[in-house]
Amino acid sequence: MTESIETGFRAGPQLSNGDPTTFGNLKPAPQVIDAIRKVVKEGSKNGYGPSNGFPEARQAVAEYVAHQGPVSANDVILCSGCSCALDLCISVLAGPGQNILIPKPGFSIYKTLAEGFGVECRYYDLIPERNWEVDLDQLESLIDANTATIVVTNPSNPCGSVFSREHLEAILDIAERHFVPIIADEIYEHFVFPGQEFHSVSSLSRKVPVLSCGGLTKRFLVPGWRMGWIVIHDRDNVLQGVRKGLANLSSRILGANTLVQGALPEILRNTPQSFYDELVATLHRHAELAFKSVKHIRGLRPVMPGGAMYMMIGIDIGRFPEYETDLEFVQALVAEQSVFCLPGACFEYPNYMRIVLTVPEDMMAEACRRLAEFCDKHYKVDQGELEERQNGLLAEMDQMD
Amino acid sequence: MTESIETGFRAGPQLSNGDPTTFGNLKPAPQVIDAIRKVVKEGSKNGYGPSNGFPEARQAVAEYVAHQGPVSANDVILCSGCSCALDLCISVLAGPGQNILIPKPGFSIYKTLAEGFGVECRYYDLIPERNWEVDLDQLESLIDANTATIVVTNPSNPCGSVFSREHLEAILDIAERHFVPIIADEIYEHFVFPGQEFHSVSSLSRKVPVLSCGGLTKRFLVPGWRMGWIVIHDRDNVLQGVRKGLANLSSRILGANTLVQGALPEILRNTPQSFYDELVATLHRHAELAFKSVKHIRGLRPVMPGGAMYMMIGIDIGRFPEYETDLEFVQALVAEQSVFCLPGACFEYPNYMRIVLTVPEDMMAEACRRLAEFCDKHYKVDQGELEERQNGLLAEMDQMD
Repeated sequence: MTESIETGFRAGPQLSNGDPTTFGNLKPAPQVIDAIRKVVKEGSKNGYGPSNGFPEARQAVAEYVAHQGPVSANDVILCSGCSCALDLCISVLAGPGQNILIPKPGFSIYKTLAEGFGVECRYYDLIPERNWEVDLDQLESLIDANTATIVVTNPSNPCGSVFSREHLEAILDIAERHFVPIIADEIYEHFVFPGQEFHSVSSLSRKVPVLSCGGLTKRFLVPGWRMGWIVIHDRDNVLQGVRKGLANLSSRILGANTLVQGALPEILRNTPQSFYDELVATLHRHAELAFKSVKHIRGLRPVMPGGAMYMMIGIDIGRFPEYETDLEFVQALVAEQSVFCLPGACFEYPNYMRIVLTVPEDMMAEACRRLAEFCDKHYKVDQGELEERQNGLLAEMDQMD
Repeated sequence: MTESIETGFRAGPQLSNGDPTTFGNLKPAPQVIDAIRKVVKEGSKNGYGPSNGFPEARQAVAEYVAHQGPVSANDVILCSGCSCALDLCISVLAGPGQNILIPKPGFSIYKTLAEGFGVECRYYDLIPERNWEVDLDQLESLIDANTATIVVTNPSNPCGSVFSREHLEAILDIAERHFVPIIADEIYEHFVFPGQEFHSVSSLSRKVPVLSCGGLTKRFLVPGWRMGWIVIHDRDNVLQGVRKGLANLSSRILGANTLVQGALPEILRNTPQSFYDELVATLHRHAELAFKSVKHIRGLRPVMPGGAMYMMIGIDIGRFPEYETDLEFVQALVAEQSVFCLPGACFEYPNYMRIVLTVPEDMMAEACRRLAEFCDKHYKVDQGELEERQNGLLAEMDQMD
């Protein structure tokens, strides 16, 4: 649902759309385009592939994700985008009557996918004051005999947070104690800002099986190509049934587009490091620009991200009495300033909004300027604050006497 | 499941694989390749599209299927292949505890898709002696209050049959009487041999809503590209909920590959009629070649197809006493002659096998030759036939006396 809301907005400074290609400022690497052109020209990848993907494409992914742990082509399933990867993982692990634990705030697709199967979603809290770390006690309290999996999104959409090694180990401890496998949504694994370090869940797991979901979408700037994957990390071989189930599920729609599959080995091997580095540098620059601007706006509380391509901004909604909710706030922001942001409601998280960091720099600056204008206009100093100021003023006057 | 069996076989005369591109004798039209190259080069279709497809691509499909009835871009949903289209249609119409009616023999994916949702499959019989027409009384007897839809495959995989107008109207009468919508799997709608005429289910429907599934896969010889579609035919507007449900379901995996979507208008508008005609002429020639060869083989009963790209061949399994089932028969055929066919068991239809007509002509001829050799070797004249022949011989001798 989020994506359809996102793709619906097209005019004005547009900080709502999770598609990094919207404004043309971020383009795929020439190596990526060359790879697909070659495949089209050769004409050898027009037929059906195996529904879990061509072996050579799966092998290329296995090499590309080697930092996640020891895996081979047999541990990789190619999917029609990372959404499809998540779809298969949730389908295979959870059934009607079971529950899955998902982050709050979190990407709305988990709920969409799970509830479609009659699977209950239970939300574990991320704490903004602790850089969006998980409330571990609350997480553990949600687990019962029907808990099928914990979904861990790292780096986070919408928070832009990157979990530390210690924090991931604490999550893994809980999963291990309760024998619950993890779905690691690691589509943003390479979007990590200086000073932060990414650890894949699987690389830290001793016992807990992990299904890691990734894809070309964000890092390679080709979301429409729909190329995602599941990497099965299962060193104790407890996921035999899951493995078989994933293979069966992948045959429902017979796999990902074969042109992109055919290009995948070259895409993953030939894209230069400089391309990746520039993209992360851009996102980081935009994050700093937005954070610096927004933190001076009265009534807003930005949380500086450590990665991904988003920033969450808290709204002191009480200071904007014209609006009851974050949804009303962002709607008014669109109406008055044509600035588009997603309300926290899209992530089950009231009184926040999410902005994306992939827009052109001048658009980002302009959006922040308009955001400041909007907030200045609608911010209401409350009675307590007024009195406080008045008292301060009186005290000053006393001193002057 | 069928497809994974199919794509597993790679050596020897290969009449099992429903992928028309396997042997390189059938290639996509240059216009199709040009269209996709242009989109890759332009670089404007790398981002997310709307999950039901780009409006201009849906418009192109609406024009392309105008013969099915009056539809607009709003009635079209693009999917990741026709399998995905069928997946969405079955998901949206049927839920746990309900049943759907599917043809027997029929394409195994219906069962795979339905049973994944806890939906019961009920098989209606196709009658080989009547060119695989539906046993209408038996079809109607299967319907109850929990029947969610009738799946009609026309032209048929695996039978290669093309239903007459009158027969489709008879099916529609039943659906109308019981208020059951139809899923029309019409992926082979343009594969119709001389003397046959294709009528889309929707074009004949007065009241029954029809979801027609189609795609590029077969006619354009690009199955790996995964471009399918659903066309919603609902003149009385009774499918509002279904329409909304399909839109929601399409957002689970965020739509089809955008490069192919971008190329779709040119593909559908620019592919010349001569390309289509040649392909159908080839399939027809292969069908006649196979039929003429196989009808002389003792123990086999080919049914001449009127369309699609398959032929069903009945096996008088009693005449091959070494084999108990069609599966054992085709396994022995592989082992001895390296000829690969799919057993009727794949289509819930014992004592038949399916051959595909898309292979190169010399391979088809060679396969028929080997099939004859295999059958000659293993065919056993039964006692009754022996006695009959003996009596005939005695009678002749009597007359000579």
